[in-house]
Amino acid sequence: MQALIVSDANVDALYGAACEAALRAQGLNARRAVVPAGEASKDLGRAAALCSAAAQAGLDRSSWIAALGGGMVGDLAGFVAAVYLRGVRCLHIPTTLLAMVDSSVGGKTGVNLPEGKNLVGAFHQPQAVAADLDTLETLPEREYLSGLAEVVKYGLIYDAEFFALVERGADTLLLRDKALLETVVSRCCEIKAEIVAADEKERGDLRALLNFGHTLGHALENAEGYGRWLHGEAVAIGMAYALELSCAARGLPRAECERARTLLRKLRLPVRRDGGAALWTALRRAMAADKKTLDHKLRFVLLERIGRAQTGCDVKDNLLAEKWHVCCE
Amino acid sequence: MQALIVSDANVDALYGAACEAALRAQGLNARRAVVPAGEASKDLGRAAALCSAAAQAGLDRSSWIAALGGGMVGDLAGFVAAVYLRGVRCLHIPTTLLAMVDSSVGGKTGVNLPEGKNLVGAFHQPQAVAADLDTLETLPEREYLSGLAEVVKYGLIYDAEFFALVERGADTLLLRDKALLETVVSRCCEIKAEIVAADEKERGDLRALLNFGHTLGHALENAEGYGRWLHGEAVAIGMAYALELSCAARGLPRAECERARTLLRKLRLPVRRDGGAALWTALRRAMAADKKTLDHKLRFVLLERIGRAQTGCDVKDNLLAEKWHVCCE
Repeated sequence: MQALIVSDANVDALYGAACEAALRAQGLNARRAVVPAGEASKDLGRAAALCSAAAQAGLDRSSWIAALGGGMVGDLAGFVAAVYLRGVRCLHIPTTLLAMVDSSVGGKTGVNLPEGKNLVGAFHQPQAVAADLDTLETLPEREYLSGLAEVVKYGLIYDAEFFALVERGADTLLLRDKALLETVVSRCCEIKAEIVAADEKERGDLRALLNFGHTLGHALENAEGYGRWLHGEAVAIGMAYALELSCAARGLPRAECERARTLLRKLRLPVRRDGGAALWTALRRAMAADKKTLDHKLRFVLLERIGRAQTGCDVKDNLLAEKWHVCCE
Repeated sequence: MQALIVSDANVDALYGAACEAALRAQGLNARRAVVPAGEASKDLGRAAALCSAAAQAGLDRSSWIAALGGGMVGDLAGFVAAVYLRGVRCLHIPTTLLAMVDSSVGGKTGVNLPEGKNLVGAFHQPQAVAADLDTLETLPEREYLSGLAEVVKYGLIYDAEFFALVERGADTLLLRDKALLETVVSRCCEIKAEIVAADEKERGDLRALLNFGHTLGHALENAEGYGRWLHGEAVAIGMAYALELSCAARGLPRAECERARTLLRKLRLPVRRDGGAALWTALRRAMAADKKTLDHKLRFVLLERIGRAQTGCDVKDNLLAEKWHVCCE
C-alpha cells in the first residue's frame, strides 16, 4: 500500500525521515514530498504538483496522503487528499500546537487564491490524526503562543470550566508542560469534534462558533499582509475586539471580558493593534469579502458569558468602527 | 444573487448570450467566463483561473456556477463549483448528447493531470440539470454519434427493453428526432440517477456498472492521444471488446453479442481498431494505471445477458490479449 508524506522543508528536516520509517514499519510503501515552508506554498499550483507526485508514486484509491507539519501543510495536503482520484485516505500528523488543536481536526482543507486565503478547498475528514506532543519541543516560541490563542477560544465559546483550567494553568502551559498539554490538546480536539460532528459542512450555525475572533482576525491578516501576524496572534486581537462587541451588543459582563483579555495577555498574545486606526477602511472591506459572508452581510460570533456564544450576530456599522478604535488606543 | 456561466468559446458563441439573458430573467446577476474549446482546458491551471474569476465576480456561498457546454465544460466547471469556497451551487446546462445522458448527471467532476485524465476531482451533485434538446441541432455529427455510444451502454448494462427501443428507433435517432430523443435522454438520466443514488461515491460495485466499455476505452484514448478518438467512439470499441470478453468469460450468448455490435455499427460507431495489434502493450499498461484499479488489479464490467451486467470481473491476461486481437482484425 502506497503513502505520500507531504511536509515543508523545515519539518521534513526535523521529522521527515522518522515519519517515513514509522509508516514503513506499519507496512506502508511511504515516500516524501517536500514543499517550501511558508504560506506561499498553499496554492493550486503546488497542489497540482503534489497530485502529479502522487500519480508518479503510483498512489491508487487505497493509498494514503500523510500531512506532516503545521496548518499550511495540513490544509494543502488535506486538499490534495480530497481531490486526488476524487479522494484518498488522509492521515494528519500535526507538529504545531495550532494544527493539533485546530486544523488537523474537522476536515476543512484549503488553498489560497491571489484574491484571498482559503478561497478554494474541500471538506475531507482525515482517517486518523496522530499528534505527538514531543514535536512541540522544536516549535518556535511565537508559533507556540499562537496556538494557545485557539486554546483560549475553545474555553470562551464552549466550556467555561476548561477556560478556568487554562487560566489556572497558564504559567505551566507557557513552560510547555507535557502532562497539562495532553489534557489541553485532548479537550480542544473533543470540543472541535463535537461541534464539527453536529454541523460538518457549516450549513447550520453551529460550526460558525469556531470563527470567534476570526472575522476581524482574517481581515487583519489580509489587510496587513500575511506574515506580519501569525494566525493565532491575529485571532487574539480579533477575540479582544469580539469581546468588546459582546459587552456592547450582547450583554457580556465587563468583568468577564477583562478576565479573557487578562488571560490572553498572560499568554503573551496581543490584544490590540497599536496605531491601527487608519486600517479601519481596509479591515471593513476585508471583512465584507470574507467567504463566510452571505450577500455581503457581516455576521459575528459574540459571547453572552464565557463559555456561551451566539453565532450570526448582526452589529451596527458605527459600533463596529467604534470598538475597533478601542482596540487601537 | 451572483452566477458565473462557464463555457467554451464554441458554445459561448452559440448560446452564451441567450443563457446569460435567461439567468438574468430569473433574477440572477449572471456573468460569463469563457475557456478555449478542447480537452486541454481541463486542467488545474484553468480551474484556478476560474476560481479567481468567481472571486472577482463576488461569488459567495449562496452563488451559482453554471456549466454551459459539453463534458469538458461540465467536468471543469463542476470541479470549480465543488472547490470554490469549499462548494457552491452548480447548474448543468449540457449542450451535447454525451453530456446530457452522462456527465451532467451523477456529480462526478474532474480535471486532468499531465499523468492522466480525470486524476483530480470531486463528487459534487448539481442542484439542477437543464438539458435543452434544441441545442443538439448545432452539434457536429461525430459528436452526436459519440453520445449515442453511451445511450447504447445504458441498455446493455441495465435495461434490455430500452436497448430494444434504441434498436428499433436507430434510424429515427440518427435523424435526431426530437420526440424520440426526449424519451431516450430521459431514460438514460433515470438509469444513471438510479445507479448513482445507490452508490454515489463508487464505494460499492454498483456505480462501476457505468464503466462498461470504459476500461479499454480510456486506455485507447490514453494510448493514442486524446483527439484521435472521441470519448464515445473509444467507448464503442471498448464495449465491442468487453462484449467479446463477456462471451468468453461470462457466457454471454454469441447472438446477443452480435446484436449489440450490429446496433453500434448501425449508429455509425466504430467496433474495431484496424491495425491496432501493436498497441496492446501500451493499452495493457494504460489499463493497469487506470484510477479505478486497486493495487494494480484490473477489473472489468462484463455482460451475462443484454441488460444484465456484472462488475469486478477478473479476466486472465492471455484472454485479454487474445480478444484485443479479435478487435483489430
